[in-house]
Amino acid sequence: MTKFWIVLLGAASCLPAQPNLMPWPAKIAMGEGSLPIDENFDISTLGAPDPRIHAAAGRFIRQLALQTGIPLREVFRDPSHAKFVIRCDSAGEAIQKLGEDESYRLEVTPQQARLSAANPLGILHGLATFLQLVEPGAASFVVPAVVIEDKPRFPWRGLHIDVSRHWMPLEVVKRNLDGMAAVKLNVFHWHLSDDQGFRIESKRYPKLQEQGSDGNYYTQDQVRDVIAYARDRGIRVVPEFDMPGHATSWFVGYPALASGPGPYSIERKFGIFDPAMDPSREATYEFLDGFIGEMAALFPDAFFHIGGDEVNGEQWKKTAHIQAFMSDHRIKDNHDLQAYFTKQVQAIVAKHGKRTEGWDEVLAAELPKDIVIQSWQGQKPLAEAARQGYSGILSAGYYLDHMEPASTLYMVDPLEQETAALSPEEKSRILGGEVCMWSEYVSPENVDSRIWPRTAAVAERFWSPQETKDIASMYRRLDAVSRKLEWSGLTHLSSYPPMLRRMAGDQPIDALKILADVVQPANQDARDEANNTQQTPLNRLVDAARSKSKTARDFAALVDKALVDKMDLPQIRAWLILWRDNDAKLEPLLEKSFLLKEDIPASRDLSRLAAIALDAVDGHASDQSAFLEQAKKLHAEVELAIVPAIEKLIHSH
Amino acid sequence: MTKFWIVLLGAASCLPAQPNLMPWPAKIAMGEGSLPIDENFDISTLGAPDPRIHAAAGRFIRQLALQTGIPLREVFRDPSHAKFVIRCDSAGEAIQKLGEDESYRLEVTPQQARLSAANPLGILHGLATFLQLVEPGAASFVVPAVVIEDKPRFPWRGLHIDVSRHWMPLEVVKRNLDGMAAVKLNVFHWHLSDDQGFRIESKRYPKLQEQGSDGNYYTQDQVRDVIAYARDRGIRVVPEFDMPGHATSWFVGYPALASGPGPYSIERKFGIFDPAMDPSREATYEFLDGFIGEMAALFPDAFFHIGGDEVNGEQWKKTAHIQAFMSDHRIKDNHDLQAYFTKQVQAIVAKHGKRTEGWDEVLAAELPKDIVIQSWQGQKPLAEAARQGYSGILSAGYYLDHMEPASTLYMVDPLEQETAALSPEEKSRILGGEVCMWSEYVSPENVDSRIWPRTAAVAERFWSPQETKDIASMYRRLDAVSRKLEWSGLTHLSSYPPMLRRMAGDQPIDALKILADVVQPANQDARDEANNTQQTPLNRLVDAARSKSKTARDFAALVDKALVDKMDLPQIRAWLILWRDNDAKLEPLLEKSFLLKEDIPASRDLSRLAAIALDAVDGHASDQSAFLEQAKKLHAEVELAIVPAIEKLIHSH
Repeated sequence: MTKFWIVLLGAASCLPAQPNLMPWPAKIAMGEGSLPIDENFDISTLGAPDPRIHAAAGRFIRQLALQTGIPLREVFRDPSHAKFVIRCDSAGEAIQKLGEDESYRLEVTPQQARLSAANPLGILHGLATFLQLVEPGAASFVVPAVVIEDKPRFPWRGLHIDVSRHWMPLEVVKRNLDGMAAVKLNVFHWHLSDDQGFRIESKRYPKLQEQGSDGNYYTQDQVRDVIAYARDRGIRVVPEFDMPGHATSWFVGYPALASGPGPYSIERKFGIFDPAMDPSREATYEFLDGFIGEMAALFPDAFFHIGGDEVNGEQWKKTAHIQAFMSDHRIKDNHDLQAYFTKQVQAIVAKHGKRTEGWDEVLAAELPKDIVIQSWQGQKPLAEAARQGYSGILSAGYYLDHMEPASTLYMVDPLEQETAALSPEEKSRILGGEVCMWSEYVSPENVDSRIWPRTAAVAERFWSPQETKDIASMYRRLDAVSRKLEWSGLTHLSSYPPMLRRMAGDQPIDALKILADVVQPANQDARDEANNTQQTPLNRLVDAARSKSKTARDFAALVDKALVDKMDLPQIRAWLILWRDNDAKLEPLLEKSFLLKEDIPASRDLSRLAAIALDAVDGHASDQSAFLEQAKKLHAEVELAIVPAIEKLIHSH
Repeated sequence: MTKFWIVLLGAASCLPAQPNLMPWPAKIAMGEGSLPIDENFDISTLGAPDPRIHAAAGRFIRQLALQTGIPLREVFRDPSHAKFVIRCDSAGEAIQKLGEDESYRLEVTPQQARLSAANPLGILHGLATFLQLVEPGAASFVVPAVVIEDKPRFPWRGLHIDVSRHWMPLEVVKRNLDGMAAVKLNVFHWHLSDDQGFRIESKRYPKLQEQGSDGNYYTQDQVRDVIAYARDRGIRVVPEFDMPGHATSWFVGYPALASGPGPYSIERKFGIFDPAMDPSREATYEFLDGFIGEMAALFPDAFFHIGGDEVNGEQWKKTAHIQAFMSDHRIKDNHDLQAYFTKQVQAIVAKHGKRTEGWDEVLAAELPKDIVIQSWQGQKPLAEAARQGYSGILSAGYYLDHMEPASTLYMVDPLEQETAALSPEEKSRILGGEVCMWSEYVSPENVDSRIWPRTAAVAERFWSPQETKDIASMYRRLDAVSRKLEWSGLTHLSSYPPMLRRMAGDQPIDALKILADVVQPANQDARDEANNTQQTPLNRLVDAARSKSKTARDFAALVDKALVDKMDLPQIRAWLILWRDNDAKLEPLLEKSFLLKEDIPASRDLSRLAAIALDAVDGHASDQSAFLEQAKKLHAEVELAIVPAIEKLIHSH
């Protein structure tokens, strides 16, 4: 049989038959023909010693029904006749473990599909792969004949969501867990507290949520529900309680925890603030012992994240009893004071049976080697930590709020630069990475559009062989996977028209969409300068705009092709005409709506850019460098994403 | 103050300031200036003797927050400072009554808005009006200064949804109740049983749902939930149990109810079938007494719908004991036999404290005058019934599955043709009407797109003064209201791209959307010819296509304008070029997908139509009548909605 297989090497191949899988599998060989998916499709689960298998099979059928529109029923057949046979011989760990076997083998022939794995986690991943393979074929939906032998490169593949700066209701969390499962991510890092909100119910210290959350927090029952939901999808849940800084919301109900006297209120602005926990008082650690004990019992995962980032020490400097404590204990500076704090907290976490995780800053303390460092600073501190014997994961380069395109995030690797030089043993301490969604400028309405589809590209970085690096292939597959991710309940595509409609009021959005399609949001730093707060409505063009729009990307590709082929492509001209003429149609609408008035310069510049480019294409080039510099600047927190391609086009003529 | 008001007469006015209200109010006068809606917006409820007021105020704030993107909190202020003061002096009926006062008065000034009503129902309607008035203005969201004094023309304004032929889960029902409330409909007619499925839990006769529903039915708790949800929104819930025909699903569990011996299975096809209840046996009425008693206790509304339509009598003719019963009782034909049945059932319904409602056919029996006839046949039988003293509502002309455009449905009036000639007293018996959504060809995915926005136009027919008949005004307002209805959770717009994506698989949908935007689905009769069943996937172009697309309508308007102005509009040429060139882009995709292959002729015909029209516009007209006739025909159950406009264009050149 194997003689008919065509082996695809990595994702670099440009065969038209390359399926739109993401992450790309460790090993894949295409066969001939395909398995039809129609009304007669059914499945059989063999072995299935774990309740997750049966639950996953049911979800799989419902998802397939949604994706195809075929009213499939959940019929489980005997394996000799079933179209899809799933075999899993052992149950997984009662609590999903870091490094548990996630491998699977999927073989599809025109007659039958067979998925096998040693562990339920592999079955979950194999089902996700199968769903990505389903496409409409010539006579029915089909899955191409294929043999896939797959396993992840890194055991820790996470998505971090900050639910403090903007509240994310339960359904936002759940649909993102579904999205994570679809691209084989396996750690949900839940950033549950920060200056701007305390988002979980504590029965022991109820003033945390009562006074620190504006009423927006998860009950413990809801948390258990999320954990079970995640477990069913092969995802560990690691909670983070950021301390000793980024903790203002704790102090609203419990001001004695802070170093300064208070009173405190929920922080509405964004940035780094002075309040920090009092590391000098025993009462602080008694409180944290009670709190961490309660949370350690609620969250089954082996890891517990204590934050530790961005403590400016201002409150410590100003507080006499803390200064006295420092001199009594020969603590020379704030850096060492935080190290002292971290050590105490790490001991509490360990006492409650958990391994500590923290941001780079916690490494200052002398800690046991079982802790995990999450680096927002880069490969260098990660390599340093690994050399010292600590485990680590990378988040630097994966910050979604920086608004980098998928191609940029995709090329960041946990094992490159300083970490590339580590010994094999040290390298094994680099467990993987996490994409970070900080929520200063996202609401439940647009958060999916910031996370997806870009996170799918990073999921490939974490899962697939390191040499999987072809950006054109990545984008081709990302576009397809992005469309499919909406079947998982994500709203990254569907939320776009309503957000444009809100700004346009009772007017059609066609011309507005032409502008919106070619702008991209400023990154978070640029937005912070505009004095935005937690209460600023996120209802402007910058909030609706997508990071590196497909239109801008497609246009850039057209320009590159035209330059290589040394010819004018008619599609380029069509785009330029569309943009040139758009401002005349759009400006009356922009003038009408206070939400759009600020976008008049962007609309005008788009039209002028297109007009200049058309002139250049027609051989009437003139020096427009001053205007191009202006066009590159931010316009009401958005930038025109097509400027680089236009510039290239002009300079080539 | 009133001297500043500009009175708008009906909806015919073309003042630019005409707000996008639907249904158009009974009386409206625009003022000067507008009330800002920003972070400081708050409300106060005075009187509020009914829990529905407070619930509605909370929903209103959440809806306003969603619609504007402003994070409004539910803050209730004292009336002297609140921006919006709501006053309702009396509580409504414990069970919402037909004809209960629904009037309200809404006055908006640049300083404050005031809504008052004698009954909570008026408050609900006034809040819906207010939400339709909110638009982005020059400095913030605003509501224009206005005085509205409003009340409905008819007291019975319904939407009928068949949940039998295709199952509609709870969330489909709920979001449609929200849509109904937004356009002031007040009766949800729940078609709960038919040949293809029995959709409600009976505790007394559990085999009804156990064997007649494929597991797809509402529990009684869910039904109570829907009734409470509807009541909160000013909507009565009238259940329908269709009998003696359209009842195959009952017979699966209870074959003895039927006239023939059985066994029976759930009907998968559509149409009129032979099985009918046995009107000759006492046991039938004992069963119905038990069942109707159970349902009458569950549904609080005063009306109970017994169906009664489309009994072909075939089973009666073939059954000896029924023939014997007829001759014993001097019942001369099937018509009279049904009348006998209806009389018995009506007495049972009355015994359980309800008024009977039925389709036209029930009128054959001599019934008490308190029953209500729902006419699917037209104004004539309705006028007949009214003359005999019966009340009636109109559904003929409001069948959504006929796929008529909004303009056609809009012009159908319960009081025209035969009913127009009735005396005032007889006219008062015409209570209103109901839009009907039969579900042969709708699934939870596309049902909203069949109901909305067209139902909003009919809602205006039922609510607004009879002379409100300007179609251009209706469409302008309908487009705006349609966009706003998605904030109520409806999916009539958002479900379109995913349905196109499913057909296109991993390919972009741009070219497919250009075709889909100009086709419209065949009506139900045409689809029945294609042997579709309950299990046919609804995943084709005909299922995604919208009834009378906005594109086709806009294009027709452009053509009309060009003919009046006797000039070629450049937009016409732009559309024609787009369509002409589309097939070349689209056909490779159509050929790839089994779901799209059938649409190749439609795509080709669209391109050819556009090419011919371009030739005509350019003065190269030739005789294309044969092709135009072909282009008018159905292509895989869709028709090209632009043919009439193209034809007009060609003939004018």
